[in-house]
Amino acid sequence: MRPAAQRKSDAIEKLGKDQDVWVATADDHGIAHLVPLSLCWHDGMVIVAVEARSRTARNASASGQARLALGPTRDVVMINAKASVIPRQDAGPAIVGAYRERTGWEPGSDGGDWVYVLLTPTRIQAWRDVDEIAGRTVMSDGAWLA
Amino acid sequence: MRPAAQRKSDAIEKLGKDQDVWVATADDHGIAHLVPLSLCWHDGMVIVAVEARSRTARNASASGQARLALGPTRDVVMINAKASVIPRQDAGPAIVGAYRERTGWEPGSDGGDWVYVLLTPTRIQAWRDVDEIAGRTVMSDGAWLA
Repeated sequence: MRPAAQRKSDAIEKLGKDQDVWVATADDHGIAHLVPLSLCWHDGMVIVAVEARSRTARNASASGQARLALGPTRDVVMINAKASVIPRQDAGPAIVGAYRERTGWEPGSDGGDWVYVLLTPTRIQAWRDVDEIAGRTVMSDGAWLA
Repeated sequence: MRPAAQRKSDAIEKLGKDQDVWVATADDHGIAHLVPLSLCWHDGMVIVAVEARSRTARNASASGQARLALGPTRDVVMINAKASVIPRQDAGPAIVGAYRERTGWEPGSDGGDWVYVLLTPTRIQAWRDVDEIAGRTVMSDGAWLA
């Protein structure tokens, strides 16, 4: 079983290296949405880009929340996050540059109406198998616990 | 780009072989939940087991719906499903047996208050990369399209 400090550093490493993140959002009728999206970890935030009309954008705008997962399923990082949706033309150069550098792509460069979703973790949990369920919380109320 | 029939057979193969499934559910306040759970594919249903008090059980009971994903993120099967929650003691021997055979475990055998969640796909989509987004729907309204 990994100690808390190891789980924290492993989680940060995954955020810095994984190609994609699972993003779950919900409307206010109990309908969950879930999609894999390219991941950018920048300045303590997970940044993803989606079309403005997408369910993810609409749900995140309305609820201000999302739940994220990095896999695989036996080495997970689970994140509860506050969500903020920004039209790409309103995003500052730091956001645009970080996303482009990480993913190799700039939303809207091929046309379409894109938004960035800025996801600020409030709770992060990390576990591999059943024996790591205890002690899985490495961030709570936005503060690292180790 | 895989033809529809190939995507369907690949999806069924993943349902029959993958160890885990991502399960997203939601409450009626726009809060999404997402967890990886052991997967059993039986009689056209995805069967998972969770504690009765879990967020997944409560959300699925209230909404009757879930969204599922099989990974990895660049070879996904995405499923919209109707959800039915059954206390383990009310589950028939076919359900209990199929789940035990697939996962090697019987919910409640170590104590605790467990339920099965029976997830019947209504829509299934399968894609690997951007070029497979077109034609990604292989089941619609509960009927295979190929």
